[in-house]
Amino acid sequence: MIVLFSDFGLEGPYIGQVKAVLHRGAPAVPVIDLFADAPAYDPKLSAYLLAAYAEAFPSGAVFLAVVDPGVGSDRPCVALQAGGRWFVGPGNGLFEIVARRSEAAGEPLAWWGLERIPEAASASFHGRDVFAPAAARLAATGGVPEGWLRQEAGIARRPDWPDDLERVVYIDVFGNVLTGIRAATLSTDDELSIGGKTLRWARTFSDVSPGEGLWYENSNGLAEVAVNRGRASDLGRARIGEKVTVTRKGK
Amino acid sequence: MIVLFSDFGLEGPYIGQVKAVLHRGAPAVPVIDLFADAPAYDPKLSAYLLAAYAEAFPSGAVFLAVVDPGVGSDRPCVALQAGGRWFVGPGNGLFEIVARRSEAAGEPLAWWGLERIPEAASASFHGRDVFAPAAARLAATGGVPEGWLRQEAGIARRPDWPDDLERVVYIDVFGNVLTGIRAATLSTDDELSIGGKTLRWARTFSDVSPGEGLWYENSNGLAEVAVNRGRASDLGRARIGEKVTVTRKGK
Amino acid sequence: MIVLFSDFGLEGPYIGQVKAVLHRGAPAVPVIDLFADAPAYDPKLSAYLLAAYAEAFPSGAVFLAVVDPGVGSDRPCVALQAGGRWFVGPGNGLFEIVARRSEAAGEPLAWWGLERIPEAASASFHGRDVFAPAAARLAATGGVPEGWLRQEAGIARRPDWPDDLERVVYIDVFGNVLTGIRAATLSTDDELSIGGKTLRWARTFSDVSPGEGLWYENSNGLAEVAVNRGRASDLGRARIGEKVTVTRKGK
Repeated sequence: MIVLFSDFGLEGPYIGQVKAVLHRGAPAVPVIDLFADAPAYDPKLSAYLLAAYAEAFPSGAVFLAVVDPGVGSDRPCVALQAGGRWFVGPGNGLFEIVARRSEAAGEPLAWWGLERIPEAASASFHGRDVFAPAAARLAATGGVPEGWLRQEAGIARRPDWPDDLERVVYIDVFGNVLTGIRAATLSTDDELSIGGKTLRWARTFSDVSPGEGLWYENSNGLAEVAVNRGRASDLGRARIGEKVTVTRKGK
Repeated sequence: MIVLFSDFGLEGPYIGQVKAVLHRGAPAVPVIDLFADAPAYDPKLSAYLLAAYAEAFPSGAVFLAVVDPGVGSDRPCVALQAGGRWFVGPGNGLFEIVARRSEAAGEPLAWWGLERIPEAASASFHGRDVFAPAAARLAATGGVPEGWLRQEAGIARRPDWPDDLERVVYIDVFGNVLTGIRAATLSTDDELSIGGKTLRWARTFSDVSPGEGLWYENSNGLAEVAVNRGRASDLGRARIGEKVTVTRKGK
Repeated sequence: MIVLFSDFGLEGPYIGQVKAVLHRGAPAVPVIDLFADAPAYDPKLSAYLLAAYAEAFPSGAVFLAVVDPGVGSDRPCVALQAGGRWFVGPGNGLFEIVARRSEAAGEPLAWWGLERIPEAASASFHGRDVFAPAAARLAATGGVPEGWLRQEAGIARRPDWPDDLERVVYIDVFGNVLTGIRAATLSTDDELSIGGKTLRWARTFSDVSPGEGLWYENSNGLAEVAVNRGRASDLGRARIGEKVTVTRKGK
């Protein structure tokens, strides 16, 4: 299975062109669209979103993950093998949190550099021209394909990034506001504040009155702010990247 | 074939996560995206849209249909077998119109309750955690999978809902305004009014002048209001749920 | 492989209904979404976009391409065989530029009329009811399917349309502004002006400062206007169809 995670947007030709390349390289492998609207141009915010949503996928899944403001510059092209899954994309921190959580879980971890950068690759669309062929090859072979990867010791890590990010990392179509904080690191007595609004925990939407706000553990383990039958994104200034303040009241 | 009908939105991870579950449970079964933008939180409006668009699908199709404002509460999780098709989703009226039209056509009808609600199901995403596994199992077995369904006599029906709904049930990307009324129940002399604007029948867009409005039978049998090369949704107050008035002039 | 190019929009049921028809007619053939948001109602602008993006697809690909403001009128339904690829859709100029570039490359070219217009075809959705069955049949047989096509000598061509179109043909989710001009017809000394703003060439975004504009050869060979980490569509009046002025400074 190949899983797509990018800021390419659903509109336009980009996802389709990537899928055409994947189909040529790995015709029998199903492709799942996970996010096409990851935080645009922001590998750091995206890293926390990717880590939270990658966990549910089975061993062997290959993530083609591209949030790549430096495309066409000399940032590295990498593959990460972590927890039985593969991640292919730019070496700009996008895989930092996936890697860190695998390390914390004691899972084997390997970083690779992409060996094949096609001569004909465009300067602006490495998702299609560089990363997709490598992801297809990984998915088709189910192992390390000969001549495509070289083991790398020195991929730059981001030790200064926190384990959980107290920022808004995504706002969904319902206006729900996803934070970069794993709910398991909070107590149900803790409060979250975004843009001047403070929210208490509830189990789910329907446990508060219509129009009332809450924070809850979303279906992928992130602390998420919502309003029952309303739009949490209209509360205060909930924008991608906005600061989230945790007031710890738990023991 | 599994057909997706929901208010999950195209953006974000929701449809992709559902497809990942479907792929695990029914890897060889194609999945068709029908609506990801059904009337949000509104099973009644959605019921008329679903019934109109389900008819064209072949016998054996499994609809995973989720418009579920009560997710996480104790509303039932159901499957309906009607006209050779299956419908899996919340027991909140969403399948009422499908059921009623099957009954009117003299087709066999069976209601089932979902037997397996996974312990680990999230409180907020039953589409992925409860309904998708059941839909995949139904599609993979092509019959009633052992241990997944129990026959139900007492699914609450909605006798007070009309056979055709004189409301706006959908507005498409072209601004065309779909009503919940089957065109076959109207005469071509009848007029429709929405938000203070009154429209007469024509066969199709190109039968009226550019900029002129009309109502016509859309390609799925619903009465739809359109403007040739314009946006009908800009006429009056065409909003999801808005009242549609029928002035019957036919004999 | 069947490739979808249309102005149907991603939302709503249209693409899904087309795919359901394709699946019935050609169950084993993969379907790629290229554009669902081609210039609406505008076959001429769309023709330049289609020609630029079709080239990368392999021989044997079948394009189901529908930008069809005259649907329901008596415009012809056609198939074009060009450069080993098939194009199925309305005979309204949409395939003019594909055809012309194939001719210029000395590739064989054949025009066909669709022989089967189903009695039950709706007046408003020929993409689903007329073109999709034909595209599926072409893709499934890999040749000219018996009884579906008749060779046509007299498809109306558009000799007055230029080889490259000095207009905006698409604006992507990043706000990048695509012109109908192949970059290979320009010199890197040439300047492009849109809506009062004049832009010079650069290789890619990251070769100019954040916030600065440029034109560059996009990953499909079109001259495209962009702003590094910004939205070129906010420059001047960049709208679909807007005039693009080329100031030739190259020798």
